[in-house]
Amino acid sequence: MAKELKDLTKRSEDYSQWYNELVVKAGLAEQSAVRGCMVIKPYGYAIWEKMQQQLDKMFKETGHQNAYFPLLIPKSFLCREAEHVEGFAKECAVVTHYRLKNDPDGNGVVVDPDAKLEEELIIRPTSETIIWNTYKNWIQSYRDLPILCNQWANVLRWEMRTRMFLRTAEFLWQEGHTAHATREEAEEEAQKMLNVYADFAENFMAVPVVKGVKSANERFAGAIDTYTIEAMMQDGKALQSGTSHFLGQNFAKAFDVTFVNKDNKPEYVWASSWGVSTRLMGALIMTHSDDNGLVLPPKLAPIQVVIVPIYKNNEQLAEISTHVEPIVNQLRAMGISVKYDNADNRRPGFKFADYELKGVPVRLAIGARDIENGTVELVRRDTLEKSVEKLDGIAEHVRDLLDDIQANIFKKALDRRTQITRTVETYDEFKTEIEKGGFILAHWDGTPETEEKIKAETKATIRCIPLDGDTTPGKCMVTGKPSARRVLFARNY
Amino acid sequence: MAKELKDLTKRSEDYSQWYNELVVKAGLAEQSAVRGCMVIKPYGYAIWEKMQQQLDKMFKETGHQNAYFPLLIPKSFLCREAEHVEGFAKECAVVTHYRLKNDPDGNGVVVDPDAKLEEELIIRPTSETIIWNTYKNWIQSYRDLPILCNQWANVLRWEMRTRMFLRTAEFLWQEGHTAHATREEAEEEAQKMLNVYADFAENFMAVPVVKGVKSANERFAGAIDTYTIEAMMQDGKALQSGTSHFLGQNFAKAFDVTFVNKDNKPEYVWASSWGVSTRLMGALIMTHSDDNGLVLPPKLAPIQVVIVPIYKNNEQLAEISTHVEPIVNQLRAMGISVKYDNADNRRPGFKFADYELKGVPVRLAIGARDIENGTVELVRRDTLEKSVEKLDGIAEHVRDLLDDIQANIFKKALDRRTQITRTVETYDEFKTEIEKGGFILAHWDGTPETEEKIKAETKATIRCIPLDGDTTPGKCMVTGKPSARRVLFARNY
Repeated sequence: MAKELKDLTKRSEDYSQWYNELVVKAGLAEQSAVRGCMVIKPYGYAIWEKMQQQLDKMFKETGHQNAYFPLLIPKSFLCREAEHVEGFAKECAVVTHYRLKNDPDGNGVVVDPDAKLEEELIIRPTSETIIWNTYKNWIQSYRDLPILCNQWANVLRWEMRTRMFLRTAEFLWQEGHTAHATREEAEEEAQKMLNVYADFAENFMAVPVVKGVKSANERFAGAIDTYTIEAMMQDGKALQSGTSHFLGQNFAKAFDVTFVNKDNKPEYVWASSWGVSTRLMGALIMTHSDDNGLVLPPKLAPIQVVIVPIYKNNEQLAEISTHVEPIVNQLRAMGISVKYDNADNRRPGFKFADYELKGVPVRLAIGARDIENGTVELVRRDTLEKSVEKLDGIAEHVRDLLDDIQANIFKKALDRRTQITRTVETYDEFKTEIEKGGFILAHWDGTPETEEKIKAETKATIRCIPLDGDTTPGKCMVTGKPSARRVLFARNY
Repeated sequence: MAKELKDLTKRSEDYSQWYNELVVKAGLAEQSAVRGCMVIKPYGYAIWEKMQQQLDKMFKETGHQNAYFPLLIPKSFLCREAEHVEGFAKECAVVTHYRLKNDPDGNGVVVDPDAKLEEELIIRPTSETIIWNTYKNWIQSYRDLPILCNQWANVLRWEMRTRMFLRTAEFLWQEGHTAHATREEAEEEAQKMLNVYADFAENFMAVPVVKGVKSANERFAGAIDTYTIEAMMQDGKALQSGTSHFLGQNFAKAFDVTFVNKDNKPEYVWASSWGVSTRLMGALIMTHSDDNGLVLPPKLAPIQVVIVPIYKNNEQLAEISTHVEPIVNQLRAMGISVKYDNADNRRPGFKFADYELKGVPVRLAIGARDIENGTVELVRRDTLEKSVEKLDGIAEHVRDLLDDIQANIFKKALDRRTQITRTVETYDEFKTEIEKGGFILAHWDGTPETEEKIKAETKATIRCIPLDGDTTPGKCMVTGKPSARRVLFARNY
């Protein structure tokens, strides 16, 4: 492990390589035998589970319930909403048969041509269509509304270029699908969930995000408005981290879902949908980690504190363990996840490097001398600062330190983003600045044509029209036409 | 809702119809637009979530970690283990293409023939093959063992006859896959997890189960030994509720997974796998429920207590609510899930019928008169007994009552099973008795031929060779050949 750690490419050498290596070496995920699909390993999955638990809690606190809808979607459903099919048709995995049979030539099994489906089934790339086909039966009157459902599921989009967590063919996510009696309520829901996502990103992942609205070019296929949270990675590229969509009545019309309103008149139902995925793992890794490995926010770290005994013989280990045990118990009573690593098949130096690689926020090391002095050696993962602390009161100290680390890595990421966010006036300036990475706030005339020109010439896209910040109007940096306000540009993942 | 309830078919009229209706009317699940696939509705999913949480806790307490492996499996993987492919090839959904395109004739979208996969992919019916292909890279030495992974996932088996929860094409489950250095350890693991399943079934679902080993005919495709827990439904049919498999070195050999043992010699790895699924929902429903609807064990009920106010005007409601609030808080502080249903759009009678249908274990009703008298009306769902209780100390009373209900419905199910389990000596007697349903303990000569004959003639199968109980040898009821011990027969789901 210590050797593997040394082999980790530095961020300054090759950021992309550093990321790919870190994902594997820290035991988060690995490529599978199936193109574009990853295996999420136990340590990576443990972080995802902590994310899930917190998000699920937040969804339930905002009145949502979980449900489960089919993995497979009839091909014809996808076609009902014109923009939706346009957006997803090119990346759909298609089930055409339901049986294998022995190869008549004796070469294993082959697809049984007699078991061809009458209508092909698509593995869900997202579930609006199958869910709105279901909601049709659930909704008759305004009294049946709102419906506030969420689903934790796997989805599949046959992407050409994949990267672990950031863009994989199959990924895990949650998708909320809500139905409302009024336009206002559906819009409010989309915004409410955007705020839940931002709250989660900033206060649990310690990842600062910009909340905004997508331009027409970047909208979800089938949405009226797409809201987004945009995070900034250490290499100056943006990462879209979560989206919520106001879908208007598009899917209600596509699946003929109407309700009788309070005035006893039929009306199409209003909709929202919203999702975050295992892509958040990518945002988490790339925001905080360093050349020594992962740096995890304490609130999402599977192991928050590790204690390593330093001993020469079993007698010393026994003595140390006597002192460690009450600390472990105290920390657990505080709800802190702690591991006492007294395994004797790896040396302390190996363990230190391993837990650094895995991003454990606080490491305590205790030797015989420490016991004599009533002290313990403490290393915090975010700064790698080493200190000697009193054993007496160490649990309280660690508890406070975890809060401090959580706040510190958020501040560090926020400071970095602030520094890397600039305002430019001219397109020339924009072209120079975009090469340096980061967010750029600039005026844009609001047309898809100008946006596409900028993308073609600079590889930068409009990440969002921010909901907060400066709303002074101006002139488009490219065309000179009027601009309602500055929008946020960046190159992105 | 009250009307819908009245429409529920009685168990004595048509048990199968009663089940199908109950699943839909209680809001647990419904058929989807996709053949054999169901939609799990919020109330059904909430019960499944409670099952998941408890099982996940038990898996982690026994040292397992969660991970996630791909949904899609290369067809060739399935063929590596001869019995495995034989068992699953006939029910595999096959992905053959990865793209749709606009129909040149203008009729929506069609499968793009240019996007044909070189090798077809199977939607996992179970994940032994893809997981053992992954484990190959994880295991070099005995120091890498054991691997104790579990996965919560959806799987798909193209069944011809489906029934909600009991047998659906897609279903949700967990599948544990473990790798060990010795045969003994892998066998021990399979037995340990069988005990975890039995513990969960009896102490959380309140469903008594018989633990046993499957005969060769009923073994998992690719296993050396399959262990099972078998439950008995109210209609006298058995339901296999969970299985764990000792896989020997079959998958290690198929995927060439070896390790260097302590003597520095290469050896194939030993394996187990084990799973329970949303089928458990079927066992839960069919074991306890009655003609009035669901009966849920308190430990898995999403709502454990419902409180319904009986009032004539808003003033009365306000007065009642003042008294209810502290009770709600007290119950919540005890960790009891309680709902105060003060919605004014449904009358108390409707609410009573609805919560009965949904199996809420305890219902409290409070009116103005009750407030005066310091009393509350209580109905327990399992017996439908009504009583008047003192408001003072009601929270403690309800807490104890929930324990009592949990114990009572288990006892009821156990008594029913005991009564319906008989020992027979002759095949004639067997043929008569099997018509009455229930478990039958009889002697069998241990051959697949005799087992098949019995199945063909009576529709009964060997549910298991029990791990406990009478082990006296005897003579096969069919052939008269020696029998090692009585085995458990039943007709089954």
